[in-house]
Amino acid sequence: MITASPTCIFCRIIAGEAPAETLFRDSFVTAFQDIHPVAPVHVLLVPNRHLESVNQATLEDEAMLGRLFTVARQIASDLGIAESGYRLIINTGRDGGQVVPHLHVHLIGGRRMRHPMG
Amino acid sequence: MITASPTCIFCRIIAGEAPAETLFRDSFVTAFQDIHPVAPVHVLLVPNRHLESVNQATLEDEAMLGRLFTVARQIASDLGIAESGYRLIINTGRDGGQVVPHLHVHLIGGRRMRHPMG
Repeated sequence: MITASPTCIFCRIIAGEAPAETLFRDSFVTAFQDIHPVAPVHVLLVPNRHLESVNQATLEDEAMLGRLFTVARQIASDLGIAESGYRLIINTGRDGGQVVPHLHVHLIGGRRMRHPMG
Repeated sequence: MITASPTCIFCRIIAGEAPAETLFRDSFVTAFQDIHPVAPVHVLLVPNRHLESVNQATLEDEAMLGRLFTVARQIASDLGIAESGYRLIINTGRDGGQVVPHLHVHLIGGRRMRHPMG
């Protein structure tokens, strides 16, 4: 099992080797501000274990994947957007627009999301 | 614990009382085609248990939430978009653009997703 990739920017943030404005950290998940926000609230949530994308997720990863969403819920509440609403996005591969090859959830809010989505 | 809402269209689909083109079903998750697709592939994945949104998710829901994503991965593979890529979206509340108040994941692919997202 690969737990960290030395060339992965998110692994470096998780390890404290690259700067980030961290909002949450437990043994499974780290959350930090996106440096290129697309909305007033734009937080990234990543598993601490290096996992390239949803395509690599197995049944053993389900609890960790679920944790990403309960942490996102808590952060949305902490940042005051739980009631106004928010969008959670995971991009996979080229068509999905995935830029960093370490699975991550975008938590986006503070404005109305666009319609149609995607 | 509310397990089904008689007025919820997704609960009615899960119960087989409303029509849908179902792609997957286990004891936790049901997946079916979105009737208003925004891309060549647009599948909805829902927990069988009625849960209004991510705002209502608790630690006990983490395994179920994780299952939504491993099932999405499998469906993306089955539909031939795992390698080309896809976007997974959960909308919550007004700003998120949530329409049906039963938590659901949108699996969208078959074309390039828009940038910036959200």
